Amino acid sequence: MGERAYNFGAGPAMMPDAVIERVAREWQDFRGEGYSAMELGHRSEHFADILARAKADLRALLDVPESHHILFLHGGATPHFAMVPLNLAQPGESADYIHTGYWSDKAMAEASALVNVRIAASAADSEFDRVPDRAGWQLDPAAAYVHICSNETIGGVEYDGDPDTGNVPLVADMSSNILSRPIDVARYGLIYAGAQKNIGPAGLAIVIVRDDLLERVRAGVPSVMKYARHVEWDSMYNTPAAFAIWVAGLVFEHVRKAGGVTEMARISVEKAQKIYAAIDASSLYINRIQPASRSRMNVPFFLREPRLEQRFLDGARRRGLLNLKGHRATGGMRASLYNAMPLAGAQALADYMTEFERKNG
Amino acid sequence: MGERAYNFGAGPAMMPDAVIERVAREWQDFRGEGYSAMELGHRSEHFADILARAKADLRALLDVPESHHILFLHGGATPHFAMVPLNLAQPGESADYIHTGYWSDKAMAEASALVNVRIAASAADSEFDRVPDRAGWQLDPAAAYVHICSNETIGGVEYDGDPDTGNVPLVADMSSNILSRPIDVARYGLIYAGAQKNIGPAGLAIVIVRDDLLERVRAGVPSVMKYARHVEWDSMYNTPAAFAIWVAGLVFEHVRKAGGVTEMARISVEKAQKIYAAIDASSLYINRIQPASRSRMNVPFFLREPRLEQRFLDGARRRGLLNLKGHRATGGMRASLYNAMPLAGAQALADYMTEFERKNG
Repeated sequence: MGERAYNFGAGPAMMPDAVIERVAREWQDFRGEGYSAMELGHRSEHFADILARAKADLRALLDVPESHHILFLHGGATPHFAMVPLNLAQPGESADYIHTGYWSDKAMAEASALVNVRIAASAADSEFDRVPDRAGWQLDPAAAYVHICSNETIGGVEYDGDPDTGNVPLVADMSSNILSRPIDVARYGLIYAGAQKNIGPAGLAIVIVRDDLLERVRAGVPSVMKYARHVEWDSMYNTPAAFAIWVAGLVFEHVRKAGGVTEMARISVEKAQKIYAAIDASSLYINRIQPASRSRMNVPFFLREPRLEQRFLDGARRRGLLNLKGHRATGGMRASLYNAMPLAGAQALADYMTEFERKNG
Repeated sequence: MGERAYNFGAGPAMMPDAVIERVAREWQDFRGEGYSAMELGHRSEHFADILARAKADLRALLDVPESHHILFLHGGATPHFAMVPLNLAQPGESADYIHTGYWSDKAMAEASALVNVRIAASAADSEFDRVPDRAGWQLDPAAAYVHICSNETIGGVEYDGDPDTGNVPLVADMSSNILSRPIDVARYGLIYAGAQKNIGPAGLAIVIVRDDLLERVRAGVPSVMKYARHVEWDSMYNTPAAFAIWVAGLVFEHVRKAGGVTEMARISVEKAQKIYAAIDASSLYINRIQPASRSRMNVPFFLREPRLEQRFLDGARRRGLLNLKGHRATGGMRASLYNAMPLAGAQALADYMTEFERKNG
């Protein structure tokens, strides 16, 4: 067996060892039933129990109020770029978007065919080196909703809290920082998140949606794109990914036992600081994000000498530090530090960075 | 460990032991990389290889011509009830549907808001006891497409071949009998199938679509609902379920080694005959489907004395014959005999049925 590596991939990402081991134990004989966990039927009592527990654990972890439903849907964040406007705004209505980089841009592009997209704030002028200060947002009180991306996975820019948008529902793509800190869910009308980063199985997504918004869905929307339909069917309208939901539930249970999101927040800061400290102490590595907006989840950095990049990656790989290559849209490096990345992994990377610079800088 | 059971569930369903064991071996250390198969990234070289092989194996298995694309999407068949009309028909156009039971009905209901649904043939008058004879179909030569459900999972009704619809594209929901027999893919404009029956992982769907139909998509359709977008992105537009696609590829490989779909067809007939023979020789069990339309995949049957149902199920469970309870919409029993069900499983069920009748009939 290969030695357990530290996987710094941006998603699908590292998962907790305890969950991987638990699945291994039940893979061939799920709960003593004589069938594989992959054969788990969504109409079984086991699955009813799994789904209920997963929802209850996520509700407890994020302190989700009873006003909000929890859904387990398919895919990543992408379907929601269209589902949000189709479900929350009528044709011709306007929605406010905060433009912080690649993923908020994707959300805006898809929405722009479906709703009047208004850019209420943008960091484009400063090459997306920060989250625009809340005080400068030009919000429209008549907007159908305000959309943010709470952590830009590629740019490495993260909100430091839950912005107040008053009576206008706040919608957030939390794919890459959900479960990494406490949030005030009551501030949000809708949260969506691909599961493949802080939760686990790629192809699964989580939605948290406020009940009173469900009736806003416009006419003619296909059933599978209606949040209300998924609420009505308790996430089973479209053949659920039963195995992936079981695994997500195991992750929720694991995070609860590990101290919940408050503890995840504490460790996340500690892990990120190790990498940022190595960058800031260096004359080889560059991260150009403003300190207050630096992401705890994804640390993109560049080498001043691009010719060293491949050597950096090769050396990292030899030490079991995997998937550090940056997104193809930006190049450079990126270290993703989701919940399942141990502190020792961040330390190992920081040590390697320092050593690599000493030898090559 | 519980003894390996025969799982007669209609989906998620039984999977091949060889695939379950293969996944177990690589679950904690995928290809010696030191990470779990669940952490497999869709931008990795491993995944590029997995996706290419899965497509090539499926293409070989079903002899898919180069005119047709193969996609791996999310969910079950349900999204396609809307995607088919949105992608193949303009608003106001008409499409022909063949009405054979529960699932063709669901497809029609969803499509009826999006296209002019014309019922070209229906078995409703005979309580869906058959596939309407092709000679009696009242097809509209101007229809945008003809839609069939090639196997009604709940009703237990199956087409015995690939109907000829001339120049009008034939669209088939093959969720519950794909890979169970050779098909003439060239006859189809589009095939869709939830993977959770003959392929494996719930939450994954396969689409086979003819290239020239991609341009028919109507204006204003969200990107995630456009087949053309998924073709353009090679199934990676919406964060792919990388692990599930790996498993599907293992199943394709397994079916190829086991003799391909010709062999699956041969065994399917043999398995189904065992159960139908037990029914036909009995005065306790009833299946009311016309012999020529009886499904090889799903055998629904009723006990003449409903009070015996629970006893039948309890006794079956004690023998490791699981999930025989019929769909809640119909009641009764249902034995699903997908590819991964061994002949010995069908034999064990037939033997049990005969013995149960002798003791209780």
